[in-house]
Amino acid sequence: MERDADLINATRPTAVNLRWALDRMLTRLRNTPASERVAVAYAEAALIADEDAAQNEAIGRHGLPLIEAAARPGRPVNVLTHCNAGWLATVDWGTALSPIYAAFNAGIDLHVWVDETRPRNQGAALTAWELGKHGVPHTVVADNAGGHFMQHGMVDLVIVGADRVSRTGDAANKIGTYLKALAAHDNNVPFWVATPSTTIDWTLSDGIRDIPIEERSASEVTDMTGRLADGSIGTVRIVAADSPAANPAFDVTRARLVTGLITERGRCEATAEGLLALFPERR
Amino acid sequence: MERDADLINATRPTAVNLRWALDRMLTRLRNTPASERVAVAYAEAALIADEDAAQNEAIGRHGLPLIEAAARPGRPVNVLTHCNAGWLATVDWGTALSPIYAAFNAGIDLHVWVDETRPRNQGAALTAWELGKHGVPHTVVADNAGGHFMQHGMVDLVIVGADRVSRTGDAANKIGTYLKALAAHDNNVPFWVATPSTTIDWTLSDGIRDIPIEERSASEVTDMTGRLADGSIGTVRIVAADSPAANPAFDVTRARLVTGLITERGRCEATAEGLLALFPERR
Repeated sequence: MERDADLINATRPTAVNLRWALDRMLTRLRNTPASERVAVAYAEAALIADEDAAQNEAIGRHGLPLIEAAARPGRPVNVLTHCNAGWLATVDWGTALSPIYAAFNAGIDLHVWVDETRPRNQGAALTAWELGKHGVPHTVVADNAGGHFMQHGMVDLVIVGADRVSRTGDAANKIGTYLKALAAHDNNVPFWVATPSTTIDWTLSDGIRDIPIEERSASEVTDMTGRLADGSIGTVRIVAADSPAANPAFDVTRARLVTGLITERGRCEATAEGLLALFPERR
Repeated sequence: MERDADLINATRPTAVNLRWALDRMLTRLRNTPASERVAVAYAEAALIADEDAAQNEAIGRHGLPLIEAAARPGRPVNVLTHCNAGWLATVDWGTALSPIYAAFNAGIDLHVWVDETRPRNQGAALTAWELGKHGVPHTVVADNAGGHFMQHGMVDLVIVGADRVSRTGDAANKIGTYLKALAAHDNNVPFWVATPSTTIDWTLSDGIRDIPIEERSASEVTDMTGRLADGSIGTVRIVAADSPAANPAFDVTRARLVTGLITERGRCEATAEGLLALFPERR
């Protein structure tokens, strides 16, 4: 069981929620007789899922005022997001998308710029799809486009998720998040990171130095999968035949570029003090 | 003839070289008898091509010292570039790639990070291909990755081309260039723009306000063309079926983020004074 947990954990070196969930499971199962483990594990997993949904709903509630505050008569609030941090990635609400769903459900006129999120296209394929299913107006754009939109006042705020946040507020998230944070900072666009407490790594003080960045297969960059004209799934190579590719999957955004964090206990500054005020038991 | 020139010019609202070339052609052809125009136009075009090659060779010569200065024993100089500004885009040498070819030909150990350059993949398809043909070591990366590499000291300098440069040094280039300039600035990585004088628009003082940004077809974002496993060309849709997309093709990088410009007359600061020192006839 311990060995399998290590094996599973090694699949996601950057994100910390998985380790958190594995540790919780091991704690629950170590002193459980082998014959009861499957049932106990299943019940614990269901409990985690319910807690996740409640946390995400709370993140939506705490993020909603940010979108409300950006509302202006006669035009939608433009929110930009990167990757997929919706209900396809977490339970029921998502993290970064939870405030968006809360605002949409509250009747706020909004529009979401969806970063394609190369190389895995989670924005183009997943975020666009789930926003569409929910009826939320949105537009998919190349990851390259967000800075231009911010320069021209076409983004009111950015909300992204995170794979791991240091106790000082540095945020690891899908590769390219850092570039959007820089553009937001350069154009005075608020940049919020939605993060349940299970994503916070209280042991780390320097996100760039300490968070390992997963290096994934080059084929994710060189080959692109989608739907061919006949509706079947096809894969095309888009990189010159003999050229190599590299594929770091995450980057780290310094806390100084983050306007604030949205947690299940409320919003806070992306600082150790800000986080500890919400989570005093970590002092 | 004038009408056709307007028609051709309207195809590239952002770049200024085309207008420059059309104006030169019209000036040459307006007082040429109709019967001689084809021959005269062909000769003038050949002259422009020869001048372009000479300009690009000079840009390579003036950019070479930047790469030489970054050379360290035992490791390659890592140059990052965006889009294609090589000999597939201009004559013989390219602009941004000209210093890279000059350095490679001079025996400097170098390696190029090639931004994929979504949505048209000019980096993945063109820059990677031509660097490969020349034997220059390179790696294709998602546009999202450059900031991460800069944070970790894996980029020594950035060289990009431009589609139009204001007289004050603001540079319009392929969408996403601005994000790389921000990352370079944030990590003290030199960011150089290679620009022949034909790319400088002496009439403009504010690049973001004054340079029109071409909006291209959404299908360039939603659909991706490449080679299927059997070697044939195929197109796949990568965006969720009912989701719209937007496609601004260029963005503008403020002169304050540009370390300097590399022109055919030498290098200069990205300022009106810097440019006028090289081109005093524009005072």
